[in-house]
Amino acid sequence: MARPTPLSGFPEWLPDGRTVEQHVLDTLRRTFELHGFAGIETRAVEPLDQLLRKGETSKEVYVLRRLQEEAGSDEADRAGQLGLHFDLTVPFARYVLENAGHLAFPFRRYQIQKVWRGERPQDGRFREFVQADIDVVGAGSLPYHYEVELPLVMAEALAQLREIGVPPVRILVNNRKVAEGFYRGLGLEDVDGVLRSIDKLDKIGADAVAALLVAETGASEDQARACLDLAAISGSDGSVVTRVRDLAAAHAISSELLDEGLAELGALVSAAAERAPGVVVADLKIARGLDYYTGSVYETVLVGHEQLGSICSGGRYDTLASDGANTYPGVGLSIGVTRLVSRLLGAGLVRATRSVPSAVLVAVTSEESRPASDAVAHALRSRGIPVEVAPAAAKFGKQIRHADRRGIPFVWFPGALDEDGVLGADQVKDIRSGEQHDADAATWEPPAEDWWPRVVPGA
Amino acid sequence: MARPTPLSGFPEWLPDGRTVEQHVLDTLRRTFELHGFAGIETRAVEPLDQLLRKGETSKEVYVLRRLQEEAGSDEADRAGQLGLHFDLTVPFARYVLENAGHLAFPFRRYQIQKVWRGERPQDGRFREFVQADIDVVGAGSLPYHYEVELPLVMAEALAQLREIGVPPVRILVNNRKVAEGFYRGLGLEDVDGVLRSIDKLDKIGADAVAALLVAETGASEDQARACLDLAAISGSDGSVVTRVRDLAAAHAISSELLDEGLAELGALVSAAAERAPGVVVADLKIARGLDYYTGSVYETVLVGHEQLGSICSGGRYDTLASDGANTYPGVGLSIGVTRLVSRLLGAGLVRATRSVPSAVLVAVTSEESRPASDAVAHALRSRGIPVEVAPAAAKFGKQIRHADRRGIPFVWFPGALDEDGVLGADQVKDIRSGEQHDADAATWEPPAEDWWPRVVPGA
Repeated sequence: MARPTPLSGFPEWLPDGRTVEQHVLDTLRRTFELHGFAGIETRAVEPLDQLLRKGETSKEVYVLRRLQEEAGSDEADRAGQLGLHFDLTVPFARYVLENAGHLAFPFRRYQIQKVWRGERPQDGRFREFVQADIDVVGAGSLPYHYEVELPLVMAEALAQLREIGVPPVRILVNNRKVAEGFYRGLGLEDVDGVLRSIDKLDKIGADAVAALLVAETGASEDQARACLDLAAISGSDGSVVTRVRDLAAAHAISSELLDEGLAELGALVSAAAERAPGVVVADLKIARGLDYYTGSVYETVLVGHEQLGSICSGGRYDTLASDGANTYPGVGLSIGVTRLVSRLLGAGLVRATRSVPSAVLVAVTSEESRPASDAVAHALRSRGIPVEVAPAAAKFGKQIRHADRRGIPFVWFPGALDEDGVLGADQVKDIRSGEQHDADAATWEPPAEDWWPRVVPGA
Repeated sequence: MARPTPLSGFPEWLPDGRTVEQHVLDTLRRTFELHGFAGIETRAVEPLDQLLRKGETSKEVYVLRRLQEEAGSDEADRAGQLGLHFDLTVPFARYVLENAGHLAFPFRRYQIQKVWRGERPQDGRFREFVQADIDVVGAGSLPYHYEVELPLVMAEALAQLREIGVPPVRILVNNRKVAEGFYRGLGLEDVDGVLRSIDKLDKIGADAVAALLVAETGASEDQARACLDLAAISGSDGSVVTRVRDLAAAHAISSELLDEGLAELGALVSAAAERAPGVVVADLKIARGLDYYTGSVYETVLVGHEQLGSICSGGRYDTLASDGANTYPGVGLSIGVTRLVSRLLGAGLVRATRSVPSAVLVAVTSEESRPASDAVAHALRSRGIPVEVAPAAAKFGKQIRHADRRGIPFVWFPGALDEDGVLGADQVKDIRSGEQHDADAATWEPPAEDWWPRVVPGA
């Protein structure tokens, strides 16, 4: 077998990179659990017709076929076909419907899993990647305060990562009701069309969006300009609400929906100013392509890495799922863990202090005395110290080099018999300083900072 | 959307079941890391031609196709086709070859991921399931002592689960060299054929296997009987080696390979008798279908649940991977986590003390005072206590019922203003006992056993 090469779009990490990713995942999980989110996992596959319900993502779906499946058999029918999930929202909606009788609502869950999209791979865009989602879903109704709470949970989770070198984030928020109320107040009825055009602002610029609005949504030049003026408003305090109100007044817009949206947006911004100062910014151009959002929408950029795109997005949807009898409104956000971690590793922002768990390599004096080395390892592990035993009873210099190559800070030498047959004391050596002293496997501990690999700022 | 139904072979757990699974995974991970295994993950897909190299598993592989992929395009060629991995060994072998220059050998890794097989689902047999693997792989050579170490690491990992109610395990070990040396010494050259027949012993019985051996491997009645006599030997001490030697002598077998295998098997059994008494049993009928094992082979049964099949299997392979310049021998075992957890849950052996992380529900007196409840929650969380805030300012009785339904043990009542405008003390109620007393969010702690959901023996 020739040396294999990586598959574009399917990133993998070396052990030290995986240590970084695992630390990120553990930190997210802990924050989510502190906020009472229960962890679930869903299967990787969903019926194809469920995955395609929204229409827009059809090109991204990977369809599964068993190699021995017969063409024309029942299984090959589209109705029975399975595809890999492309996000965690569609499977979660299905899980809620399937298990509604066993869940207490509002149901708070986190879910950290891989998803797959057959898109063309680019920087920060993968065919296989990990998402970390939180959602709260209600049965029948869901109070607005969850739209304030959830982005603040994500702000806290991402803030926990600052100490390992993750840059600060900015969470950009908007409210669909503001946009819809404003557009309809202006006389534009194709709200989805306007949103789709505004969504292209960063990519194609204001003039091109104005032209699009005129060409595709039937807007006049004035209406297009008003939409762009709305999209230009941003800020992290109550003045945002005032400026939107002033703009609406200038266009003689009166809309209950707009007023409701502004009250919500104002509440979010003011709660955020208190609980996560400087993190949450109202940005009226945030549109989010997906048409199922009905209230708050969120995007998140890494400060200094805005070109990477959003690393944490989501919003409020009035109908996450519906089974006829009940509808389940929800609000949630999803962190693109792989996008984040690939940037952390690629830009050298974060690193692991070593690539193996072991704090100690126990040397082996001779293969006959390997059981003595195993006993030392067992004694250390029984007190929670990660240890491995040397692969072979080579010269000690070689065993030390083996530890060094693996980044293991300590080498343990079991006591040897002296000329009179007296067993000498064990010794432990810090191979970085060269310092070596007697030690007892029943009591010795590594310094706290060497106990486990740590994840720290790079450079 | 009608209420969806589960997909056979793709198990999912409710939140309390997931809590059990997560505990099992965390316990395995910790044990693996204490033994110096580095965690890696590999992508879910491999090129189809790599997945099919071993031939035997072709019927189990799920092949991927992008929905919009054009038939006849390059991507549709079999050479470029991707399939979901059906184990973690094939991807690990590829990872080792791809990254050999960046890894220190012997390389110790653990890997906990889902795998997929398009088999007919049965009890304990799934189409999507989690495996937890450990392997040590060397460059060029790998000492025998790892064949002793690895099953003992698994024994320790599974022993750690005893306290939550997992039954004891029995690790059955054999050595390919013993079988091959014995068969060849008998004059049987179709070693793989004999192993395949012996592998059916539990399923079809001794007489049918004898007939198979005669019909398919050209064995005489006597030779077949000798193979069955070998397969009947088992035990957890050195007497096993003696009995095999006696049987070989009775058939005038002299084989260096047999002697080497017996020395190895004896060493494993005696080390295990000391380090994991009663867990490891030499069982000469363990064959393992796969032809790439070359030394020790392992299977593991849950005592009292032998019908479930092996929950942890593996062995030694002299050629995990080869890139022409180097071969990489390895030894490893794989726990079938989903098989284990589905039995734990299905048989009620293990349960979680609650289905949500929250130890405390902070009640909300009125929507206007929600920020006061949020502040209590924040104060508790900052000391690591998992907390959620009530969904609505309903009557306290209703809020308590909400906590009860979710299994949350404590409800916190923020202090209220009395008639004179003086703020009263906060109170916390244990809703199981009804006991309620003043509490300070800056200092109160739940009892240790209520802090997080625990995983405990069922009933």
